[in-house]
Amino acid sequence: MNAPADIKSYMLKVGQRARIAARAIARADTETKNRALLAAAGALRRDAKKLISENAADVLSARAGDKDAAFIDRLTLTDKTVEAMARGLEQVAKLPDPVGQISELRQQPSGIRVGRMRVPLGVIGIIYESRPNVTADAAALCLKSGNACILRGGSESVRSNVAIVACMHEGLKAAGLPENAVQVVATADRAAVGQLLAMNEYVDIIVPRGGKDLIERVMRESRIPMIKHLDGVCHVYIDEGADPDKAILIADNAKTQRYGVCNAMETLLVNEKIAPRVLPQLAKIYADKGVELRGDEEARKLVAGMKPAAEDDWYAEYLAPILAVRVVKDLDAAMNHIAKYGSQHTDAIVTENETRAKRFLREVDSSSVLVNASTRFADGFEYGLGAEVGISTDKLHARGPVGLEGLTSQKFVVFGSGQIRT
Amino acid sequence: MNAPADIKSYMLKVGQRARIAARAIARADTETKNRALLAAAGALRRDAKKLISENAADVLSARAGDKDAAFIDRLTLTDKTVEAMARGLEQVAKLPDPVGQISELRQQPSGIRVGRMRVPLGVIGIIYESRPNVTADAAALCLKSGNACILRGGSESVRSNVAIVACMHEGLKAAGLPENAVQVVATADRAAVGQLLAMNEYVDIIVPRGGKDLIERVMRESRIPMIKHLDGVCHVYIDEGADPDKAILIADNAKTQRYGVCNAMETLLVNEKIAPRVLPQLAKIYADKGVELRGDEEARKLVAGMKPAAEDDWYAEYLAPILAVRVVKDLDAAMNHIAKYGSQHTDAIVTENETRAKRFLREVDSSSVLVNASTRFADGFEYGLGAEVGISTDKLHARGPVGLEGLTSQKFVVFGSGQIRT
Repeated sequence: MNAPADIKSYMLKVGQRARIAARAIARADTETKNRALLAAAGALRRDAKKLISENAADVLSARAGDKDAAFIDRLTLTDKTVEAMARGLEQVAKLPDPVGQISELRQQPSGIRVGRMRVPLGVIGIIYESRPNVTADAAALCLKSGNACILRGGSESVRSNVAIVACMHEGLKAAGLPENAVQVVATADRAAVGQLLAMNEYVDIIVPRGGKDLIERVMRESRIPMIKHLDGVCHVYIDEGADPDKAILIADNAKTQRYGVCNAMETLLVNEKIAPRVLPQLAKIYADKGVELRGDEEARKLVAGMKPAAEDDWYAEYLAPILAVRVVKDLDAAMNHIAKYGSQHTDAIVTENETRAKRFLREVDSSSVLVNASTRFADGFEYGLGAEVGISTDKLHARGPVGLEGLTSQKFVVFGSGQIRT
Repeated sequence: MNAPADIKSYMLKVGQRARIAARAIARADTETKNRALLAAAGALRRDAKKLISENAADVLSARAGDKDAAFIDRLTLTDKTVEAMARGLEQVAKLPDPVGQISELRQQPSGIRVGRMRVPLGVIGIIYESRPNVTADAAALCLKSGNACILRGGSESVRSNVAIVACMHEGLKAAGLPENAVQVVATADRAAVGQLLAMNEYVDIIVPRGGKDLIERVMRESRIPMIKHLDGVCHVYIDEGADPDKAILIADNAKTQRYGVCNAMETLLVNEKIAPRVLPQLAKIYADKGVELRGDEEARKLVAGMKPAAEDDWYAEYLAPILAVRVVKDLDAAMNHIAKYGSQHTDAIVTENETRAKRFLREVDSSSVLVNASTRFADGFEYGLGAEVGISTDKLHARGPVGLEGLTSQKFVVFGSGQIRT
């Protein structure tokens, strides 16, 4: 694994190879793609020891580089994580193949029948942190959706990723598919990312999976479309018509089930009519779990010792045991707050009132809008997509968790019997 | 209609107003939007004389500016074109409203039900030539799909557009909707386009309708996503299994029904086995209609006096009575030609062979792929979309003719009964 001397020409070659492989993988049938996935899963299991030893070298360098425990944890492969990767490939093989599906054909007055066929996007560039399990997941989703991919994991995980992709190559080869359909950027040189972002000609879409810094960089540097979310400032609104028990369960779960995830609640909005009934009780639950509350004036009247929230708190994605709390007059005030401070990621209402639930569903402009369920459900697995390559808060193409379908497009297909236009 | 002194601050105000109006138009119900469209149609009819007189002033200036006859023709409004605009609004009112539609809800193992709801994109910027009828069409499609729009027609049509938009405003007002949901850039200053392209914050998508120069400019200058097609290098492939009569009808129609349109055939590919049967006959038809043929060596053997095609001819979008002709060995050669020289717009195969038809449909990576029908059908009306805002050859979001649905996105909606994630 020698770092190539000239990153630009190395990356251009990767791009050219991906573009060529994309045509072959796009026309591969479902059975062939599944065969590749299952063979790759077998290779991962067989090579578990080798993968773990390559990974150990990565871990050693990372430790020497003073990375923290959480980083090392995400980087480290074990027998269990290798098995999980293999099982992940098998699960993707079981998912329905979107490619080639034709939506309802409709006959037009001219006599032609018009429908839409799902087709792959082409070449997908995925940039992620030093988490080798993402390598297998992302490659599997791209392969199954008929796309070629260029994988660029964190610099500290190059040896692990090269070893994992070798197993993917073995699977592709066994199925008679081009190995270049899955490529890993085999250099720790960070210049490779800049080059990947500049290859409009060879890369159809970029999926940046990682921190805000990475996503902001991609937005700044690249003109290639991307699937991304920048922030997850998620809200739960407890409506006056909420069932108080459900409201408390949901507001607790949305904040405390996991703190560091993009679909965790960051601001709790409570209708003034129900606030005296639910807020003190919730405050006690949060206090017991060590969650710091920062409230507006009304909220602080109901909960002794609550810190005051500053304007910045309404915009904050804490990803930590901190919660902003605001008491609002009505549904409109809640939706205005979300429109102003939210990040269009995931927002929930708790209410038994159908009219207000419908208004919230329709009018809140976020990638996921929930009624009487925790924001933590905003996830490809929980939504039944089988897996996800990421969550999009953009409006074009794909919004919310992006599974196989989000990695495809639709073209028009027309069946005629000699029709001409008059 | 004074040109504003400071274009930048003028455009920023237009953008801010659009962003605010977008929220109101997004939540408007179908009946209200239809009422606005019908009232606007009534206003157009009532103001026909005024529209035509404002337009006459535009036409006068354009003539003074030495514009050619085709340009003046596209610019000119008549009683007939005003009536067609009014009828266009009424037709859009009749189309089904995509906004708020929820796709099949599916219950997940956790008990939540997950579906997708169609939602507007937000603010759409449309840049087009001096064709005032586009003003009414585009405004109607944006309004019905729940989007605010900023319309920027050609500099020579400002007075006409302002008058048309006044009728749209009357309709919006009658329905209780904000007038700013439809705005026209009321200045002939071309700097307004540059400013529109820079307003990422206020414009969600740009639709450039016009020549290649405009689209290349938008691609160069803007980071706002767009719905566009750059070229229409469309092919018809006559397969060895084609019905010769259908093949001749389709190849004739695809080229000669109209020359200057993006879905006209620019290159004819003929299988070598059927070429002797169809090519001489087609050559005669084209000769009678004054179409110049430029062929490869094999084609020239079959048609006396055919000019030789140069490499550039395969890439050419003539938009004129010129046709490139190539004889190919088989389906793969035809598809390789299309992959190399095509523009992913619209391509057709003529064949009675189902296997090869299926391969062509699946493997040709264009926004429209047709079997036994003329490329000229690639059009929103012919496809049953009711209308189109343009044709997209991009792969993300919308491909092919873009109607109301292409101006919307889908968000996830979740119905729970108190579910939390464990």
